[in-house]
This record gives sequence, C-alpha cells and structure tokens, in this order.
Amino acid sequence: MKVTIFCVGGTIDKIYFDAKSEYEVGAPAVGRLLREMKANIDYEVVSLMSKDSLEMSDEDRATIARAVADSAQDKIIITHGTDTMTTTAQQLKKITGKTIVLTGALAPAIFKDSDAAFNIGCALATVQCAGPGVYIAMNGRVFDADKVRKDVDQNRFVEI
Amino acid sequence: MKVTIFCVGGTIDKIYFDAKSEYEVGAPAVGRLLREMKANIDYEVVSLMSKDSLEMSDEDRATIARAVADSAQDKIIITHGTDTMTTTAQQLKKITGKTIVLTGALAPAIFKDSDAAFNIGCALATVQCAGPGVYIAMNGRVFDADKVRKDVDQNRFVEI
Amino acid sequence: MKVTIFCVGGTIDKIYFDAKSEYEVGAPAVGRLLREMKANIDYEVVSLMSKDSLEMSDEDRATIARAVADSAQDKIIITHGTDTMTTTAQQLKKITGKTIVLTGALAPAIFKDSDAAFNIGCALATVQCAGPGVYIAMNGRVFDADKVRKDVDQNRFVEI
Amino acid sequence: MKVTIFCVGGTIDKIYFDAKSEYEVGAPAVGRLLREMKANIDYEVVSLMSKDSLEMSDEDRATIARAVADSAQDKIIITHGTDTMTTTAQQLKKITGKTIVLTGALAPAIFKDSDAAFNIGCALATVQCAGPGVYIAMNGRVFDADKVRKDVDQNRFVEI
Repeated sequence: MKVTIFCVGGTIDKIYFDAKSEYEVGAPAVGRLLREMKANIDYEVVSLMSKDSLEMSDEDRATIARAVADSAQDKIIITHGTDTMTTTAQQLKKITGKTIVLTGALAPAIFKDSDAAFNIGCALATVQCAGPGVYIAMNGRVFDADKVRKDVDQNRFVEI
Repeated sequence: MKVTIFCVGGTIDKIYFDAKSEYEVGAPAVGRLLREMKANIDYEVVSLMSKDSLEMSDEDRATIARAVADSAQDKIIITHGTDTMTTTAQQLKKITGKTIVLTGALAPAIFKDSDAAFNIGCALATVQCAGPGVYIAMNGRVFDADKVRKDVDQNRFVEI
Repeated sequence: MKVTIFCVGGTIDKIYFDAKSEYEVGAPAVGRLLREMKANIDYEVVSLMSKDSLEMSDEDRATIARAVADSAQDKIIITHGTDTMTTTAQQLKKITGKTIVLTGALAPAIFKDSDAAFNIGCALATVQCAGPGVYIAMNGRVFDADKVRKDVDQNRFVEI
Repeated sequence: MKVTIFCVGGTIDKIYFDAKSEYEVGAPAVGRLLREMKANIDYEVVSLMSKDSLEMSDEDRATIARAVADSAQDKIIITHGTDTMTTTAQQLKKITGKTIVLTGALAPAIFKDSDAAFNIGCALATVQCAGPGVYIAMNGRVFDADKVRKDVDQNRFVEI
C-alpha cells in the first residue's frame, strides 16, 4: 500500500516573510510533518501548485483531477486550501475506483496551535480505511464530499 | 454518531512535577487536545485509570474490556500506553459489533514534538471509517490488532 | 520597581485571519507571553498602536516618545516592528533619566519557532540591569541605540 | 565580548526516554535553543555535568566554582537545576571580577510551554549589562544571589 499526497497550497503551507511583511504559500508542509510525526507508511509527496484556494481556477482544478486520475496509486490525499476545498472535491467525483481524501488546515502548520498534524492524521487513516470515493477530512470528521460545507463564520467544516 | 473515548494513561498523558523531579501520568490529554484542534464531532471522554502501560494488570485490562462492552456507543477510542497496547487490544477482540481503536503517543502531548494530535486524528478517522473490529492507530498507520507489534528498538509500531 | 511595556505593533503581534487569508497585526502578544512564562515582576502593558513598523509615521514616533516621557515609570520596554526599530530608538534618545529598551520579534509570537519569548526575556533583564539610555534587545544581544542596524539580508540585528 | 555558558543539568535539560518510561537529564538544551533563537553573540557551551540539582554534592559545586574561576572569560552563564540554584550561587560569591548569572527552567526546554528560552534571554542580557557579581535570572527577574529563594509551593523564584 502506497499513498500519494498531492499538495496544491492553502493555509496549511502558509509561511511568513519578514522582509516583506507578507504571508505567502510556501513549500508543502506535509513532508516535514510526516517525518516529525514518525509516520511509518509508504508515501510520496507531489507538489502540483502553491495557491491560496480562493485564487484557484477551473484550469487548476482540471490539473489536479488529471494528476489524481493519472496516478498509479489508488490511495490519494490532497492538501488544499480550505475556502474552495469542497469545490475541488466535486470535480474529483468523476474519478472512480480510488479513495481520494482532501484535507488542509485552518491555521498554518508553522503555528503553535495548528490543526495540520491532526488533520493529516485524519486523512491518512481515512485513505486506509474508507472505500473508493471522495472525502474531506477536517475538524476531526470524515465527510462525504457531497455532504459538507465550510462554515466561514464559525471557521470550521460542517455536515449539510 | 457519538464517539466514546476511554483514557487509561500512558505516555500521551505524562506530565512533569518539578518539585519531585519525576514524570507522572496526569489527567487525560485528549479532551484539551480535541478542543485545541477544533474537533467538530460528538464525543465523550471517560477516564478509567491513569497508568503506565507496563504497570497494567490483567484486572486492569478486564476493567477496560468491561467498560467498552458496557458502553452504549459502538465507536470506541482508547488512549493507552504504547508498551502493552497490543496486549490490551487482544483482550478486546472478544467484543463484537463495535469499532474499537487504540492509540496513544510516543512523546507526551505536552512536548513540542509530540505525535499525540496526529495519532488522535488517525484514531478518530479510523473509528468513523472502519467496520467492527479492533485496530491500533499509531505512526500514521491503521493496524489490525492481530498484525502489529511495537518495535522497541526503533520506537515505533510495525506490521507483523 | 515597576516596568511599563508599551506595545506599538510589529511582527511580534502578527496574527492570521483565515477568512481573509491575510496576515494582520493583532493584540499585543507580550501580556499573554509574560503570563505563560510565569514572570514574577510588577509590570503594566499599554497598547499605543498596532502598526507594521514600515507604516509608522513621524507622528507615530512622536506619540511613542510622548508616552515614554510622560510615563511615571523610568523602566520602559517597547515592543516594536523590527524594520524601523532603530529609527524610533533615535527619536527616544532625547528622553533622559529613563532606561528604555526596544524589542520585538523576527517571527510572530504565535509561531512554533518564534524568538518572541527569548527577546522579551532579554528586554526585561536589560531594563533591570542597564543604566539610563536607549537600548535594542534583539538576537540575544543588548545594543546601544547608536550602534545597531537591522541586516535585512541576514534578517538579524548587528553592531555598527 | 564572549560569553561562556556552563551547563550542569537540571530541569531545563530533562528529556524523556519512552523505552524506560523515565525522565532523565539529557544533553544541554542551551546550544540548540540559541541557534533556534538566532542569537547573534559570541559564546561557547561547556557541559560540566548532567545532574538533577537535588543530587548535587559539595564536590560538584566545587567543580563548578573551579570551572568558573579558571575560565578565560569574565561573562559566565550557568544553566542549573532550580532546586539548589541558590546554594550554588552562594558558593560562587567568592569569585571576584566576573559577572556570573545562573538560570534554568521550571519546565524542560522540550515542553511546549517551557520557560527555557525566556530565561536564557534574561540571563544573556544580564551577563551583558550587570557589573561583576552573582545573579539569578528566573521568572523574568534579575535577582542578587543574596536576595532570592525558590518558593517551592508556588514554583517560582521570589525576592527575600
């Protein structure tokens, strides 16, 4: 069993450049995090793009879908910005025979109180235990891609 | 769906008392951790005991098994010391119709580099996605209770 | 002995609002930090403004100078953005009879690897030990206000 | 200006060995901490012993005093266990012409909420700013070695 982790950006990967006093999407956080957490699984990390999810285009989502479909693996995790995670999830539903789990973080992985490790843990277990389909693993919950939205006011994912 | 989390002690709950310069098992870490991680699930935390797992007796394991069997819930997580986690898992196999996931941590939850949040995330997704049975969620992996041991030298869980 | 801590913003106080995916100056970090560090000193925290130091005007610096001069205390710490910290320090040299220490952070206090607690520790000891004058406490060093600049390329303060 | 940092053990250096489920004094934390904090000072770290301060003997204190007296530097920091820090400080008062600062931590440096970086920051500024003498830098306060005790119940250092 091998897990392919596609990274496309989002809050989880955000870093801070002091010189510019801006907050930017950096290299994928998931690789370093899995090493720090002593993950004992067979995985590969593939960075597809580094975008705030509000800036993702239809073309970006097509790129992601193509990468997932073309992957030799059938266990796929995607680390993604939270604002349009459900939109991308919808685009992936046409891919059959694979377990696809989208996750990310509400606070960057470099923050003391980040939910990144927790969410990545959720996503890893989901990709191992759930059957084919598209899922979102956020806030300790495994959501079906069709039954979830981000509640922006409460800053969390909820069932619909 | 409600998850019952039984806490029995172990490294995950270890704290440090300066006055005595000793390291002791404290209150369950999982409750605070789930709040910090903004978990949006229905759960209850039940502390059964606070023991280093090397000091657990047969009677302790019987207590745990009884609590799991008697619980009204069929989705059960147990935070447990790592040294005898697999032994307790074996004792729980006789319980049918429930999804039982044991987890814990190799470094206490209060450590900067603790794997506690990551493992709890894994356990939460497992209890939601896996069918009835007994599982161990450690090192980013969901193990069948019959196919796992702790590799003490490498300080991680491996498949057997 | 009482220490007055004036907060004017800067990286040390930066936080992250997910909804807007922007990085903003938040409430002063120093109060929470001193509680967490179990500081046993008599101090008061006064927030004067919340600005990135690149956006500070001459008027802002005049406001700071007036607050320091008018304070009943003669032990003053100022948490400040790093980019123009030395400029503000120059403006404060005209104030006599007070020990004035500017500090801040190269990474926000909410980051896992922030230098905020370390720098605040430096500033506190400086304000207790140094005679009247204006100092910058950054990178583990107590600089005379006249003999320091920020090396932007190396992202640290150096002696001149 | 060069600072010599002698390390003799204590809570600041405590680590946790999972295999043995015990808590032991490890390698000096101060070196790694100063690198992480981007300290821009000239310093050397010398490990003299690794002891819980309750287990220190008169001979141990004589060893420390000799190392301090023999050092080529006159700016000395000692990271030390908190329980007998004041006793060691008394032994060092006979050394003249040097600024000697003892510090440590109430929670190990590897803990999320450790005061180690904060205290090391305090000690560094003290050694730079204070005249010859023996000081204890704990809880954000620079104490004269003659006017401080550890309040064990409140777990902090207080003036006497």
